[in-house]
Amino acid sequence: MSLINETHDINLTSWVASANVANGDFPIQNLPFAEVRRKNSSEAFRGAVAIGDQVIDLAKVNQLAIFSGDAQIAVAAASNATLNEFMGLGQQYWSALRLALSKALREGSAEQATLSEALIAQADIEFALPCRIGDYTDFYTSIYHATAVGSLFRPDNPLLPNYKWVPIGYHGRSSSIDVSGQTFHRPNGQTKAPDAEVPSFGPCKRLDYELELGIYLGKGNDLGDAIAIENAENHVFGFCVFNDWSARDLQAWEYQPLGPFLAKNFASTVSPWIVTTEALAPYRTSWTRDENDPQPLDYLESTHNRELGAFDIKMDVLIETQKMRDEGHTPAQVSKSSFKHSYWTVAQMVTHHTVNGCNFMPGDMLGSGTQSGPTHEEAGSLLELSRGGKEKITLSNGEQRSFLEDGDNVVMRGWCEADGFARIGFGSVEGTILPAK
Amino acid sequence: MSLINETHDINLTSWVASANVANGDFPIQNLPFAEVRRKNSSEAFRGAVAIGDQVIDLAKVNQLAIFSGDAQIAVAAASNATLNEFMGLGQQYWSALRLALSKALREGSAEQATLSEALIAQADIEFALPCRIGDYTDFYTSIYHATAVGSLFRPDNPLLPNYKWVPIGYHGRSSSIDVSGQTFHRPNGQTKAPDAEVPSFGPCKRLDYELELGIYLGKGNDLGDAIAIENAENHVFGFCVFNDWSARDLQAWEYQPLGPFLAKNFASTVSPWIVTTEALAPYRTSWTRDENDPQPLDYLESTHNRELGAFDIKMDVLIETQKMRDEGHTPAQVSKSSFKHSYWTVAQMVTHHTVNGCNFMPGDMLGSGTQSGPTHEEAGSLLELSRGGKEKITLSNGEQRSFLEDGDNVVMRGWCEADGFARIGFGSVEGTILPAK
Repeated sequence: MSLINETHDINLTSWVASANVANGDFPIQNLPFAEVRRKNSSEAFRGAVAIGDQVIDLAKVNQLAIFSGDAQIAVAAASNATLNEFMGLGQQYWSALRLALSKALREGSAEQATLSEALIAQADIEFALPCRIGDYTDFYTSIYHATAVGSLFRPDNPLLPNYKWVPIGYHGRSSSIDVSGQTFHRPNGQTKAPDAEVPSFGPCKRLDYELELGIYLGKGNDLGDAIAIENAENHVFGFCVFNDWSARDLQAWEYQPLGPFLAKNFASTVSPWIVTTEALAPYRTSWTRDENDPQPLDYLESTHNRELGAFDIKMDVLIETQKMRDEGHTPAQVSKSSFKHSYWTVAQMVTHHTVNGCNFMPGDMLGSGTQSGPTHEEAGSLLELSRGGKEKITLSNGEQRSFLEDGDNVVMRGWCEADGFARIGFGSVEGTILPAK
Repeated sequence: MSLINETHDINLTSWVASANVANGDFPIQNLPFAEVRRKNSSEAFRGAVAIGDQVIDLAKVNQLAIFSGDAQIAVAAASNATLNEFMGLGQQYWSALRLALSKALREGSAEQATLSEALIAQADIEFALPCRIGDYTDFYTSIYHATAVGSLFRPDNPLLPNYKWVPIGYHGRSSSIDVSGQTFHRPNGQTKAPDAEVPSFGPCKRLDYELELGIYLGKGNDLGDAIAIENAENHVFGFCVFNDWSARDLQAWEYQPLGPFLAKNFASTVSPWIVTTEALAPYRTSWTRDENDPQPLDYLESTHNRELGAFDIKMDVLIETQKMRDEGHTPAQVSKSSFKHSYWTVAQMVTHHTVNGCNFMPGDMLGSGTQSGPTHEEAGSLLELSRGGKEKITLSNGEQRSFLEDGDNVVMRGWCEADGFARIGFGSVEGTILPAK
C-alpha cells in the first residue's frame, strides 16, 4: 500500500514564494506543526504550520473559517495553547487538515488573499513546547550506539543478550524537556573516579549530547489494550529532532541497577516543529534484519513493517563554541547519521511499549535513542566520538573537545531527501550550556 | 524545632461522632485530602477531607465561604477537579486550611450547623486520582529490599557499591497510575527462562506487588534551582500508600542496562487519601546511619534530617483470593513493615533528585521503593517472601502463593501510632488482577 498522496507531489509550489526555494526546510510538501506567538509578546500560544520563511497562524485560520468538515474540526483543535487535543483526534483529522492547507497554500489557490492574513514571518515568532508531554520514554534503537557505549561501560560485555530481542527503553523525565533555545547550568552531582575510594560531589566533567529523534504519539490507547503492529503507525503523529543531554560521569556512578536518572533529567531539548508521519511517506524504506541476527518475535513482525517500516531521516550535529561566536566562525559539524540505521522501527517501539497494556496519551513522546550509524564518524555522542574521552576531536576552527564546555551551543538538524520528491527539513534544535551553579 | 501544633492534640474531638471512635483511620488529627464525587454520579470531582466515616466536600465549603484569608484561598484551590493548584500554593496555605478545618470540625465549633451541609458519607463516594501526576520517580530506599532482590538477580553482587552513597531512583510511568480499585489484565510480554535458548512471548508468570509509600510534591522548583536539604520538606505535600505492581519475569529479561520498563508500567495503584506531611509530625523519628556505613555527602546532611528525618509509618499487605471471597474468608495478612527502616529520608530523596537542577511540578510523585524491613517477615514483595519463587507462602485459609494469581485482590494499609498522640490511618489501596488478554 503506497503512503504517497497528492500532498507529496514534487511539482506543487506555493504562493508563499520562500517555500519554493531549493533546499529549504519548509516547502509545501512539508507543513510541520508547532506552537508559536509573536516574539516578546504576551499573546497566547497557538498552533502554527511552517511554510517557507513564514508560519500560518492556525488560530487565525480557525477564525477565518475557510475550511469545512474534518479540516475545520482539526484546525479548531490546533488553535489551542497545546496541540494535544489536535493530536488526539487521529489520522483522519490530521490528514484532512494537511490536505486543506496544501490546497490553500498552492499557487493559484482561491484562498490566497484570505489566508495571507494568517501569515507571520518566522523571524518574528517564538516557540513553546508543541504539546504537554505527559510521559516520555527513551529507547535505545541504534545497535551501533549500544555496542559502542556498552564497550565503554562494560568492556567484557558490550551488547547484552536481550538487545536483539527486546526494543530496550526506559522512562524519562517530562518536566525538564523544553523547546529549542533551552539554556541550562552544567549539572552538579555525585561521581566516582575509578581509582577513588569514595565518590565526590561537584559539577559534571563529562557533559555530552545525544543525537535523537523525538516521536510524538497522537491518538492514545486505553490501559490494557495493546496496539498491534499493523495499527501502530496510526498512533504516531510525527517527529522532531531531540537532544538528550547526558552527564556521563554521573551516569556511570548512578545507573546500576535501575538505569540513568540524574544523568539525564537536568534538561532535554526538542526542535519546535513536528514533521508529521504523513509528510515523511516519501522517505520510508524497507526494514531488514541481518540473516545472522535473530528475527523478531511475532508480535513485532508485519509485512508493512518489513516493506516500509524504516525512515531515512538524515541528522547532523554542530557545535558552536564561545570562541566561534566571538570570532564569527560558523558552527562546526561533528557528526552526521540517519535514522534508517535503527535496529528497531517506530512501529516496533509503539507495539512493544503497549504489549503489556501500557497506555499512551496524546502528546506522549518516545526518544529514538542516540542515532549512531555504522561508522565511527556517524556516532551520535561525544562519548563515542572521543572514545570515552580518550581522544579529543578537533573542530573546524582548531578547538578541541572530548566533552562539552561551558558556552557551547549544540545544534542538531534533520532533513529528508529522496529521488523524485522534495527535500523537507525539521529545522534545528539548539541548546547552550551555562556554568555550574 | 518542634513540628507539633494544636492540630495534633490528642484531646481534640469532633462533632462528627465517627471521628472519635478508637483506632479509626480518620480522627480530627488526620484530615487527609482526596478527590471525590458521589458514587455513580456524573458530578465533577472536587477536593475533600476525610473525617470519621464522612468526608467534607471542599467545593461546598468554598461556596459556604466560612473561611477567610489563606484558608479561603486554599479551599478555593482545593475545590478543583485536581488538587494540583492547591498543592502548588505551598506550606503556608496547606497549614492555614488544616487549622481552619480542625477548628471548624471540633466539638463545640460555631460552624457545625453550616459545615454539616458539606458532609457526605464515605460509603456514598467514589474517588479519582487526587492530582495530575506529571512525573513519577520510584526510589529504592530499603536496603533490606535492595539486598534481598539483588541477591536474586545478582547472587554474586547483591548490593552494588553506589547504594550506600546515592539515593537510587529511576523514572516511572505516570499514565498507568490509577486510584485504589484499579483492575488490570495480567500483562503479556517477553520472558526468557534461564535454560531457554531464545525468549518467548506470553502472560507474565511471576506477577508481584511492591509495598511502597507514594510521596506527593507540593510546591515545585524552577529548572536549575536545586532544593537544599534544609528546605526539602517544605516541598512535600503528603503521603499515600502505593502498590508498584511488578512483573518479575519480564523484569529479569528486560532490565539490563537501562532499568525496569514493561515490568512496571502496566499498572500502579495509589490509595485515594493523601495524608499531609503536617499531619505526620507526631510520628517523626530520628534518622541514623550505622557507624560502619559511609556517612552521606554534605548535600544530603542536615541537623533536622538527623533529628526528625524519618517517618514511622506502619504498613501491611493482605491478599484476598477468589476463594476467600467465595467462602467469606477475610483477607490474609502476608507482611508488615514500617517506613522508619528506610535507608534514605524523604528530604534526601527530594534534595538528591533536584541537585542537578531537575525541576518538580506540583503533584509529581515519588515512590519510596519497596519497604521491606530487617526480618524476612517484613519483606514488601512476594519475590522476597517466596525467596525468588522457591518457597510458597501459606495464606491464613490454607491456600499457597509464590506469585499472584488471577482474581487476587491485594490490599495495602498504612497507619501511624505514637505515645501521647492519636492513631491516624491512610485508608487502603486495593487492586485486582484479571486474566491475561
